[in-house]
Amino acid sequence: MFKTLYRMMIGKPLDSHEAEGERIPKWKALPIFSSDALSSVGYGPEQIALVLAAVPALGLYSYFGAVVIAIIILLGVVALSYSQVIKANPGGGGSYAIAMKYLGVYPALTAGAALFSDYILTVAVSICSGTAALTSAFPILAPYHIYVDLFVLVGVLMIFNLRGVKEASTAFVWPTYIFLAAMFTTILGGLYQVFIVGVMPQEAVVQSSEPLTGVTVLLLLRAFANGCSSMTGVEAIADGVPLFKAPQERNAMITTGIMACILACMLGGIGYLFIYFHLLPIEGVTLMSVLVEEVFGRGVMFYFIQLATMVILYLAANTAFNGLPPLLSFMARDGYVPRYLGDRGERLSFSNGIVLLTLAAAILIVVFEGSVEHLISLYAVGVFLSFTIAQSAMVMHWKTSKEKNWWIYVCINGLGAVVTACVVIIVLITKFIYGAWIVCLLIPALVYMYLKIHHHYENVREQLLLTPEAYQTYMKVEAGRNLIIIPVASPTQAVAKAIYYAKATLGPDDKIYAVHVCTDEIKGEKVKQLWQRLEPSIEMVLIPSPYRQLSSPLVTFIRRLRKAKSPNDVITVLIPEFETKKIWHRLLHNQSGMILRARMLNYVDVVVVTVPFKFTK
Amino acid sequence: MFKTLYRMMIGKPLDSHEAEGERIPKWKALPIFSSDALSSVGYGPEQIALVLAAVPALGLYSYFGAVVIAIIILLGVVALSYSQVIKANPGGGGSYAIAMKYLGVYPALTAGAALFSDYILTVAVSICSGTAALTSAFPILAPYHIYVDLFVLVGVLMIFNLRGVKEASTAFVWPTYIFLAAMFTTILGGLYQVFIVGVMPQEAVVQSSEPLTGVTVLLLLRAFANGCSSMTGVEAIADGVPLFKAPQERNAMITTGIMACILACMLGGIGYLFIYFHLLPIEGVTLMSVLVEEVFGRGVMFYFIQLATMVILYLAANTAFNGLPPLLSFMARDGYVPRYLGDRGERLSFSNGIVLLTLAAAILIVVFEGSVEHLISLYAVGVFLSFTIAQSAMVMHWKTSKEKNWWIYVCINGLGAVVTACVVIIVLITKFIYGAWIVCLLIPALVYMYLKIHHHYENVREQLLLTPEAYQTYMKVEAGRNLIIIPVASPTQAVAKAIYYAKATLGPDDKIYAVHVCTDEIKGEKVKQLWQRLEPSIEMVLIPSPYRQLSSPLVTFIRRLRKAKSPNDVITVLIPEFETKKIWHRLLHNQSGMILRARMLNYVDVVVVTVPFKFTK
Repeated sequence: MFKTLYRMMIGKPLDSHEAEGERIPKWKALPIFSSDALSSVGYGPEQIALVLAAVPALGLYSYFGAVVIAIIILLGVVALSYSQVIKANPGGGGSYAIAMKYLGVYPALTAGAALFSDYILTVAVSICSGTAALTSAFPILAPYHIYVDLFVLVGVLMIFNLRGVKEASTAFVWPTYIFLAAMFTTILGGLYQVFIVGVMPQEAVVQSSEPLTGVTVLLLLRAFANGCSSMTGVEAIADGVPLFKAPQERNAMITTGIMACILACMLGGIGYLFIYFHLLPIEGVTLMSVLVEEVFGRGVMFYFIQLATMVILYLAANTAFNGLPPLLSFMARDGYVPRYLGDRGERLSFSNGIVLLTLAAAILIVVFEGSVEHLISLYAVGVFLSFTIAQSAMVMHWKTSKEKNWWIYVCINGLGAVVTACVVIIVLITKFIYGAWIVCLLIPALVYMYLKIHHHYENVREQLLLTPEAYQTYMKVEAGRNLIIIPVASPTQAVAKAIYYAKATLGPDDKIYAVHVCTDEIKGEKVKQLWQRLEPSIEMVLIPSPYRQLSSPLVTFIRRLRKAKSPNDVITVLIPEFETKKIWHRLLHNQSGMILRARMLNYVDVVVVTVPFKFTK
Repeated sequence: MFKTLYRMMIGKPLDSHEAEGERIPKWKALPIFSSDALSSVGYGPEQIALVLAAVPALGLYSYFGAVVIAIIILLGVVALSYSQVIKANPGGGGSYAIAMKYLGVYPALTAGAALFSDYILTVAVSICSGTAALTSAFPILAPYHIYVDLFVLVGVLMIFNLRGVKEASTAFVWPTYIFLAAMFTTILGGLYQVFIVGVMPQEAVVQSSEPLTGVTVLLLLRAFANGCSSMTGVEAIADGVPLFKAPQERNAMITTGIMACILACMLGGIGYLFIYFHLLPIEGVTLMSVLVEEVFGRGVMFYFIQLATMVILYLAANTAFNGLPPLLSFMARDGYVPRYLGDRGERLSFSNGIVLLTLAAAILIVVFEGSVEHLISLYAVGVFLSFTIAQSAMVMHWKTSKEKNWWIYVCINGLGAVVTACVVIIVLITKFIYGAWIVCLLIPALVYMYLKIHHHYENVREQLLLTPEAYQTYMKVEAGRNLIIIPVASPTQAVAKAIYYAKATLGPDDKIYAVHVCTDEIKGEKVKQLWQRLEPSIEMVLIPSPYRQLSSPLVTFIRRLRKAKSPNDVITVLIPEFETKKIWHRLLHNQSGMILRARMLNYVDVVVVTVPFKFTK
């Protein structure tokens, strides 16, 4: 029954040869990779306005246009840079892979850590924002907002992504396009009002006449840093190149370009309308909804756009599901995260990575009690850090490639690196006390963890390495006797089966010990007597256990045996284990077989044989 | 490090021979077994007053004395009955054991279920009441009350009881005696004021002149039922007879008598003073504290008694820790609950039962969010049901024993059975909608579970039964060949160790198959080539796995092998398993060995051999 449910949710397994069929065309890739970036126009311009309009007397609002233009230019540089990353690194893996290639391990791992923390935050923040939109529409759901979060995370995003990227993209493609249509309708409707109808703004924008001071520059920088939150998610395509249809690099580059253009148009259009209508942030409503009301009034269109915005916020989380698992698979291949994160599941998605992302985001949501306000401060440092690293790596790439006009590319990427590094510093300074410090601790901790993991895998590789010569030498060592120990609680059919197996595989010099760990002296004597009637040819050893423990006395017994016998002798512990017919029956048995097995393997050098005894009812 | 902490908390293990030393004298048994019953004088009389004073016009308050006397008489009957239970059933196990002996399985299991639910409720209710008292003294703790509950439950009660009943009694003995001293000081102080000083009550009690109607009778019955809550815990001694010092029955009987006398004196004294001073329930303060203030004023004595009351409420929970685990051990011996609930832990306490009780109470506390009000409605049905069953069993006992004057005892216990049965019905009627219905569902569900468990153990016993004849016949079956299957992910040292073991124990006709489950065709071919250079004498079988699964293709392979070979042949799956040096390293390996082992044992009839490969770093 559980299996049927699982199949219904995940779908039938896909053959490895179907991998090509799971790849997606550009028009599907665009929504699934860019829902994060595109959705941020819903709140990016507002974040700028919030800072600029905070102190009206300073007259900073007049710089709104300049800040938006600066962000669009930065977006152009970053997008250009990432399309070069895709070209230089067609295998995918984005900043991490390119940094590993040109800058070395530490920058690459820093990028990996930055992206890891950022993707998880993306999921948590987007889901919480989506639920905040939902609960403001349906206040009845407000007390259960964390359950709604977790349902969307596990029940929708995780399940759909486990079903494979193709199904997820099919499910999530339309909401994104509907959101885009809604946004452009708003922008075009606004421009129509401005240029054709000729609506005048309620208030003219006052040009600031004051010269710029230190404080105003800092505020402008902060507005700029806030607006940069619109750019999170731009790197997702470069992480997921292998998911594209062939020609992969070309399609991925074109998609990056299209995404950047759409984002730039939306930012520009919405920014222009904000300035033209001189919209100021109001407590409790989003600036976007004020703009929509200004353009269309409070009609059907108004509610439709609100709804589309809510849906796109949930989908923004999906970008991380498409970006992080492929990135983790790259890091797993290099041995910096657990290897199994690189395994493709039954549906060819990186299912372990998807589950890890889900778990991590769920923990964040529960710990921060689904509060967007607390989560958002941790955001954006990671993205810009990875941007900086990627662009620095590209500089190295051009310098070594010596292509035609390489110095132009070096300039572009160098400028990009400097600007994004500045953004990192600005974000760190302006958001440090609000939570960015957590990221400052988290990224080095993650890098340290990656290095420890890599160190372990290196150790393992070294210890497991087997040459044909080493193998031949090993096989030439003469094997000693096999000393078989069978723990007997009382003589039952299960023990009989174990004895039978032991006898069937017994060599001429081998020896069987039936061992009873004696927690109760009277019972011990009884078992011994029964045993002597049953099988006089096998010696029964009574091990006293005054403290009623099971494994410790047996460990001591085996250690003594080990010392007494030849070092070539093999000790085998043969454990009769019950296999119950129903799962709940397991709760009725004390798992001593399992505990014994675990302790034997851990504490003494023995081989453990499990002889199952299946209950038929 | 974990081990040291564990030792510090639980103490060094105790030898089975020290069991006698863990037994406790009467003066220690009294507080640990009766803290539940004794603590209830803190709220029992108030519960009566609440009902009687609810509608002052009815003038029912004048029946206060009558109700208290009725309860004291009932207490006498129940205590007498339980001292007979102890005598008739010196092995302990209380109502359950005596019912099993004289009434049969169903009444016994009903008693077991009633006591099980009631003990768990005792723990939850007592701890929550104690915390309620604590947080009303320190309101700063109020938001964390559930954490306080869980700390007291796990950190104090569970740990102390795991350390053994002797240490628990030593730790908990003084608070109970201090509480008793405080209560008797209050009663004596009150009587001094009444008879020596001659303080007059503020208001005379008005004798009701109305004749009793249906409604007033129902209210009187409800007051009586409420007052009966003082009697929960009386049966605990009969469940725990084996914990007493020899002569066990005699000591247990005397302790029951002493407890009943103390309880009767306190009920009578406090009841008398309540009536004399005509104390009426007031919202927000306990009647007990009103009485204390009346007697001593609001001085040191007042606060001291409040504190003692708070501590005794926590200790009331401890009674269940001494009552339930021995009861469960009796039921485990008979196979109605998991057998391991009867095992004594390292400190000779029934540690599994203690942990089960802790878990169940913790779940109740968390589910009901630590609310006494919600929990208390579920209370008292269980106790009186078990009283009724025990007394009915005693009636049967006397009838079969034909001792001298047996008919007098039959009358006493018969009366007790009828009265307690009436209390069950009264409690059920008056509290049904407030939550007693939950207990009405829970008790049959528990009985059903006990029966299912017993059925399973009977099945197991039947299937495991081994006679010497059956053993001889089994051993005469000729063993076939041993077909050894070694799954190889890639040729490593771990695989070499497994091959070495297989070769060392190989019989002349046996065969080894090296099997590679091929999730990736290119890798599969590479592994096969490597293998042929390494060990050409052992065939390598490539099993295709297009869906990248590991165990399913292997299960199919083994099923085919099973069909192709003689049914006498044994199939052994030899799994090389990594033993990592540090526990966290385990997270870096995909546990495929463990999963493989579990699935092999579940789905096909094979023996599984684990050859551990220990990493040294």
